[in-house]
Amino acid sequence: MQEVQNYIQANKDRFLEELLELLKIPSVSADPAFKNDVIKTAEFVADSLNKAGVDNVEVCPTAGNPIVYGDKIINPDLPTVLVYGHYDVQPADPIELWESGPFEPVIKKTEIHPDGAIFARGSCDDKGQLYMHVKAIEALLANDALPCNVKFMIEGEEEVGSVNLGIFCKENTEKLSCDVILISDTSIIANDTPSITTALRGLSYVEVEVTGPNRDLHSGVYGGGVANPINVLCDMIASLHDENGHITVEGFYDDVEELSMEERKKMAEAPFNEEAYKKSLGIDAVQGEKGYSTEERVSIRPTLDVNGIWGGYIGEGAKTVLPSKAFAKISMRLVPHQDSDKITELFSNHFNKIAPDSVKVEVKPHHGGAPAVTPTDTPEYQAAHLAMIDTFGKDPIPKREGGSIPIVALFEEVLNAKSVLMGFGLNSDAIHSPNEHFGLFNFYKGIETIPYFYKHYAELKK
Amino acid sequence: MQEVQNYIQANKDRFLEELLELLKIPSVSADPAFKNDVIKTAEFVADSLNKAGVDNVEVCPTAGNPIVYGDKIINPDLPTVLVYGHYDVQPADPIELWESGPFEPVIKKTEIHPDGAIFARGSCDDKGQLYMHVKAIEALLANDALPCNVKFMIEGEEEVGSVNLGIFCKENTEKLSCDVILISDTSIIANDTPSITTALRGLSYVEVEVTGPNRDLHSGVYGGGVANPINVLCDMIASLHDENGHITVEGFYDDVEELSMEERKKMAEAPFNEEAYKKSLGIDAVQGEKGYSTEERVSIRPTLDVNGIWGGYIGEGAKTVLPSKAFAKISMRLVPHQDSDKITELFSNHFNKIAPDSVKVEVKPHHGGAPAVTPTDTPEYQAAHLAMIDTFGKDPIPKREGGSIPIVALFEEVLNAKSVLMGFGLNSDAIHSPNEHFGLFNFYKGIETIPYFYKHYAELKK
Repeated sequence: MQEVQNYIQANKDRFLEELLELLKIPSVSADPAFKNDVIKTAEFVADSLNKAGVDNVEVCPTAGNPIVYGDKIINPDLPTVLVYGHYDVQPADPIELWESGPFEPVIKKTEIHPDGAIFARGSCDDKGQLYMHVKAIEALLANDALPCNVKFMIEGEEEVGSVNLGIFCKENTEKLSCDVILISDTSIIANDTPSITTALRGLSYVEVEVTGPNRDLHSGVYGGGVANPINVLCDMIASLHDENGHITVEGFYDDVEELSMEERKKMAEAPFNEEAYKKSLGIDAVQGEKGYSTEERVSIRPTLDVNGIWGGYIGEGAKTVLPSKAFAKISMRLVPHQDSDKITELFSNHFNKIAPDSVKVEVKPHHGGAPAVTPTDTPEYQAAHLAMIDTFGKDPIPKREGGSIPIVALFEEVLNAKSVLMGFGLNSDAIHSPNEHFGLFNFYKGIETIPYFYKHYAELKK
Repeated sequence: MQEVQNYIQANKDRFLEELLELLKIPSVSADPAFKNDVIKTAEFVADSLNKAGVDNVEVCPTAGNPIVYGDKIINPDLPTVLVYGHYDVQPADPIELWESGPFEPVIKKTEIHPDGAIFARGSCDDKGQLYMHVKAIEALLANDALPCNVKFMIEGEEEVGSVNLGIFCKENTEKLSCDVILISDTSIIANDTPSITTALRGLSYVEVEVTGPNRDLHSGVYGGGVANPINVLCDMIASLHDENGHITVEGFYDDVEELSMEERKKMAEAPFNEEAYKKSLGIDAVQGEKGYSTEERVSIRPTLDVNGIWGGYIGEGAKTVLPSKAFAKISMRLVPHQDSDKITELFSNHFNKIAPDSVKVEVKPHHGGAPAVTPTDTPEYQAAHLAMIDTFGKDPIPKREGGSIPIVALFEEVLNAKSVLMGFGLNSDAIHSPNEHFGLFNFYKGIETIPYFYKHYAELKK
């Protein structure tokens, strides 16, 4: 293992340069305008796996964006780890808030990243983290030190719901057969406080359209007499939470897993500084569901957030219009036992029910995803735990995260394998936001830790 | 007068062609991108006044868009009518809903306009109506039949608050001195039901900005724990009306003129078919303040409408963002005795007061305008009344309108003259909306009626 670590040290600068090239390709999956760049990125990833020494690399077409597959089977009797990651990225909007181009990566030092961080869309989510795996296997293979079989499945539709990955998995269960799935698409608590993610929230995402009159109207001539779809939409959205921050959609909490006081007490022991949290976000007060702490609100409790809203005149100056339509994108983060499709249906029913007669509403479901919990008493969790001790020098903390990797639940169902969520980002890395970044410390720590994971996992599975 | 009417008949086609040329210039005052077109339009109007035989025509520069002035003083002892109109237009957005180009006028027949209507931005509001005045004076001067003095003041900032017109009036009280101001920027009830506008609503217009976290956040990582400015904005907007449709801004109704039951009863006699109204707008139900009819809600009652809202991700597909900011443009229509500046201040105070600690809000006032009432027992109202009888063959109905011409109150204050609101549009002409149009019937009826107004006014003032 020392040789592997020496190799990583010796090739650090090249690893970084390669990642920067990967980050330059704008693989935005939500916008069809980037289709060619998405393909180019898949090819880049495949090429990098090939160069690392991985076998059977292929860019597998799907009905959407291709999936990159590759494997290294050193001995069929040894356990097999399937590495999952995604090469697609979130849209860069709002582009004007980026301090440097989202696809022109630069290294800058920050308070949290004194050694420097890579600023670019996808640097942390998930190109930087998937590339740690490519470089880790390169280091292992170059030193003939791979202790288990490894497969790679890197997709290009994670940010738009992984629709085709599900089909791909179902059609390739043999090819993808494995003992565990290893995913680096989450975060640690801090660079001196390693953690392993033990739960993810699910997602239900809808777009709503409220239609009032059949055309935009003059707000003087009609104002007061005709329902304004923006005002109505605001009323409807406001009514989705009660005064305690509970979501009012009928049946929404029916399946929510309630944690015991003991579990909640244990959670509260993880370091969290609310003053620092507020300061870093520039807010005077946190806000959320009554009866729960901030850490609980963002992990063990379901939410409902408007992710986008628009309607009427949004240009410069004033226009006195009573618009025909108003729109919103609304997502709900779900916790264990809530079902994404069921929640989408409950929302749709509720939203139609609360609409006044004066408007028509339409609810269009976008992608969803199931919540997931990973147990901590498994060989894979233990392997991640031991690997982090090796490189961080301290015990990682088990941690429930608020984000979603919808595919985790599907892996369990289709591939009959558990996932281990060993990510290396930080919550402050601004993923999905302008100025997304990924610490150099974190990038290298990931590359260093992954080989230890394989080593411990192979040993624990003996 | 018969010669004047004959002249109008003989020159109908040319009048229309000239108006179509005027409509081709996109004089959008709200958007600086159209600055050159605005200037070009002012020059077109000045040129048309010159050709009509008006004297002293000039394009008067202001700090904003120029004002076109011209006059025809036939005898200082005769009364003087100041014609006011505006050559600027509303933005054409949403452009995709226009069936033909907003600045490529076409004539099409409709159910309401079987003789055809001119479809173009500004056709009714107000280029088409101001051009009726240019053609009416041409007809009078060509036949040596002008019975009084006439001055013209055509501005280019009506749609953005007429800021510089106020200054212009104050600096030119002598030049603009007159006995009455004649404005055609309103509507009649129907082509077989002439009406004269006796009141206009005022306007207070603000833009609000709600800021939550200092950057866009991942809605999974932070959702539930941090106030989402879109949700907060929706809550705040929803709270601006109570369950009866009353506006909750403190002090909002303090100065509202309450009409007597007798006045309301008289109003209710004007023809109004609610089923036809709903059908024409494609709505199943009207909505508004409890205790008032639709006609009252859009004329004698103040309103609060969101004219535009935006925030978060509004592109294709899904983005799970918890945005930093959300925005709305909100306007309030005011009724007699409400003061625009006071209402803006009340709104601003209220909006700041209801904001939760978890966000910061900013309220930016746009232009406003005072409500106006015109009495019906004056020579100018009688002149308009008699002129309409001459051309429509029936008594026009006095009618309060919901729109605003903020300058009417200012004229009274600065020029010490009352206005008479003799417009010829229809409410269904889609002003401020896509597919704005103006009936050919209405255009010609206006040109025919205006000379009778001058005749009756001169006689009544003898």
